Amino acid sequence: MNKIITIGREFGSGGRELGRRLSEALGFAYYDQEIVSEIAKRTSLSEQYIEAIAERHPLFSFPIHIGRSFYLSANPVFEQTMKVYQEQARIITEMAEKSDCVIVGRCADYILKELKPFRIFVYADMESKIKRCREKAPADEQLTDRELRQQISGIDKKRAKYYEFYTGHSWGDKLNFDLCINTTQTVIKEIIPAIAKLFLS
Amino acid sequence: MNKIITIGREFGSGGRELGRRLSEALGFAYYDQEIVSEIAKRTSLSEQYIEAIAERHPLFSFPIHIGRSFYLSANPVFEQTMKVYQEQARIITEMAEKSDCVIVGRCADYILKELKPFRIFVYADMESKIKRCREKAPADEQLTDRELRQQISGIDKKRAKYYEFYTGHSWGDKLNFDLCINTTQTVIKEIIPAIAKLFLS
Repeated sequence: MNKIITIGREFGSGGRELGRRLSEALGFAYYDQEIVSEIAKRTSLSEQYIEAIAERHPLFSFPIHIGRSFYLSANPVFEQTMKVYQEQARIITEMAEKSDCVIVGRCADYILKELKPFRIFVYADMESKIKRCREKAPADEQLTDRELRQQISGIDKKRAKYYEFYTGHSWGDKLNFDLCINTTQTVIKEIIPAIAKLFLS
Repeated sequence: MNKIITIGREFGSGGRELGRRLSEALGFAYYDQEIVSEIAKRTSLSEQYIEAIAERHPLFSFPIHIGRSFYLSANPVFEQTMKVYQEQARIITEMAEKSDCVIVGRCADYILKELKPFRIFVYADMESKIKRCREKAPADEQLTDRELRQQISGIDKKRAKYYEFYTGHSWGDKLNFDLCINTTQTVIKEIIPAIAKLFLS
């Protein structure tokens, strides 16, 4: 059976970097943006649109009426969001069955539960998340700390609702993960050899 | 500065085993029962008595009246519990200043916060905790699963109240730890080399 590592992460915690570096250290396939590209290819929707709905709770985009029509039963936006999720679940399963891999976000830990993935959650305190976001931001970014804090909390709230909608589990609850890594005081590349060792035997 | 590892743990999760094995792999001192023995030596209280109050919230042993007397100001049991905690904090600090070490339980993560310990929390789901307890239980133990579950929950509730009383933090909240390890599907000795690698540089 393939070795599958899923990474859940708080925004700004460096979870994506950890996933990428871990996949490089292990020689595993790495899936993140690749999933969006694949959905786009299969559904003919744009990557931008998929990005916009891919980690959003479907009820957020549930309009009561569209134009002057009132939808009582079917709702096209809701249906499309569900369709994207289903396509994503199919793609993630195919990727996991293909080879050893690291998959970031997208409820992969839940979608792949039958394949027993090793589930990592990456988190940090707010100050260090703000610092990480600043380091990655374009030079002309003007956000204050307060605005950045709001943005980080907002993104994580959406992730939490998305995760809870599709899995029925509380997002970031440590019992749903095998390992939770706090990156507040961590230089990510320095811990990679130790984390990688969990999968080398 | 010494390398200090503190281990918080749910009852039955194997946290003590993890701490002991980690200290052996690293050649670090290991403190657990040693702390109780040292308190006993310094306070002239029995080890059994210290065990009984050492991880208990002091208000649990706060009697409204003792015999027919009613204590309005000082309460000897409360005071003794606080004294044991303070002695324990002193001993833990001395141990941490002496050499690299692993310390299990006893709010050591909080007591030593100025020394920047690496804080591990070990947890597991209830079924695997019951299984671990059964494996360690004496052959003549007759507890049902339900009784064992109650016992495990009861001990962890006491630990939580104790920790929250002395630290003001929520027990087991992942933000208070650097690494949280779920032992539900883990053979502890197999992950020790990887965890140890975090401290070898």
